[in-house]
Amino acid sequence: MARTRLTPERESELYTAVLDLLREVGYDALTMDAVAARTRSSKATLYRQWGSKPQLVVRALRHDKPVALAGTDTGSLRGDFHAALDLVDTCQMEKDSALMRGLAHAAHGNPDLLQAMRELLIDPEMTGLETMLRRAVDRGEVRADHPALKYVPHMLIGAYTTRWLVEDRAVDRAYVIDYVDSVILPALGV
Amino acid sequence: MARTRLTPERESELYTAVLDLLREVGYDALTMDAVAARTRSSKATLYRQWGSKPQLVVRALRHDKPVALAGTDTGSLRGDFHAALDLVDTCQMEKDSALMRGLAHAAHGNPDLLQAMRELLIDPEMTGLETMLRRAVDRGEVRADHPALKYVPHMLIGAYTTRWLVEDRAVDRAYVIDYVDSVILPALGV
Repeated sequence: MARTRLTPERESELYTAVLDLLREVGYDALTMDAVAARTRSSKATLYRQWGSKPQLVVRALRHDKPVALAGTDTGSLRGDFHAALDLVDTCQMEKDSALMRGLAHAAHGNPDLLQAMRELLIDPEMTGLETMLRRAVDRGEVRADHPALKYVPHMLIGAYTTRWLVEDRAVDRAYVIDYVDSVILPALGV
Repeated sequence: MARTRLTPERESELYTAVLDLLREVGYDALTMDAVAARTRSSKATLYRQWGSKPQLVVRALRHDKPVALAGTDTGSLRGDFHAALDLVDTCQMEKDSALMRGLAHAAHGNPDLLQAMRELLIDPEMTGLETMLRRAVDRGEVRADHPALKYVPHMLIGAYTTRWLVEDRAVDRAYVIDYVDSVILPALGV
């Protein structure tokens, strides 16, 4: 892979610059020219390393973020959800929530961006979530054919995306924990 | 109110034109000039009647749409949800789902649009939903202090907004009914 040419420090620096630009101007107005200028690199380098703007932006978001949801095996679904949320930096969560909202919206008109988001951001979390839920089923905490199982992703993503609309407030850790305890676990009969 | 000057037929014609334009070009690219041209009216008339583009667009969306959620009092929460969903035109739901997503997107950068959406689209449904839930509490179906009660709006809106992201599919009646039965009612202990 061409990507091995960058040192991890340089790659990290580039990703930070991309996220800064994203917060400043939003996805649609972000150009590869601006990223090149900000990071003193050439556009050719950027395209060689990342192939496209959607790939670069989504890798910047993914960078340094462990898949949270497979998480620690605590022995209970409630424990697993809480442990996963403990791994999430609260300030980062609030900062990212606006950013992800902007990106989700840009993705409506941009199939390449949507695909990159699915592959690099959503699918890994969904896989982690499935692992966590399978452990709960294996332990006998949740019935394998429980009708709410297939909607856990909708509930969880919905918790993040609807708060601003309903309450005009950013998502924070206390809210997500309360949503997990009040909605997701009871819906699953846990 | 200046709005009484238009006949209901003319008003309805204008709203249809606004929704057509919205589907064609999206909120950001929709101009009052284009609405004026399409409807053979003057911009002055549009501004006199509706005051602003956000107000015009949101009233066009609200037009002819009864508040679905207060709905029929069927004697059970499950019955009330199903009856409310029976009132919704399924084809319209699929058409509107893309339109509402686009509008929610535009609202991120536009506080006037967000406020108009809250006042004319979201709050009336939330009030209807509260009425429906209060009936369930009064009947003893749901505990008044049930922790999931405050999250019913999040669950319901989340069901509509997350399906495209999780499943890459539009919302239809069967999905919403199944979501209500599998997630919302069990979360409430019904």
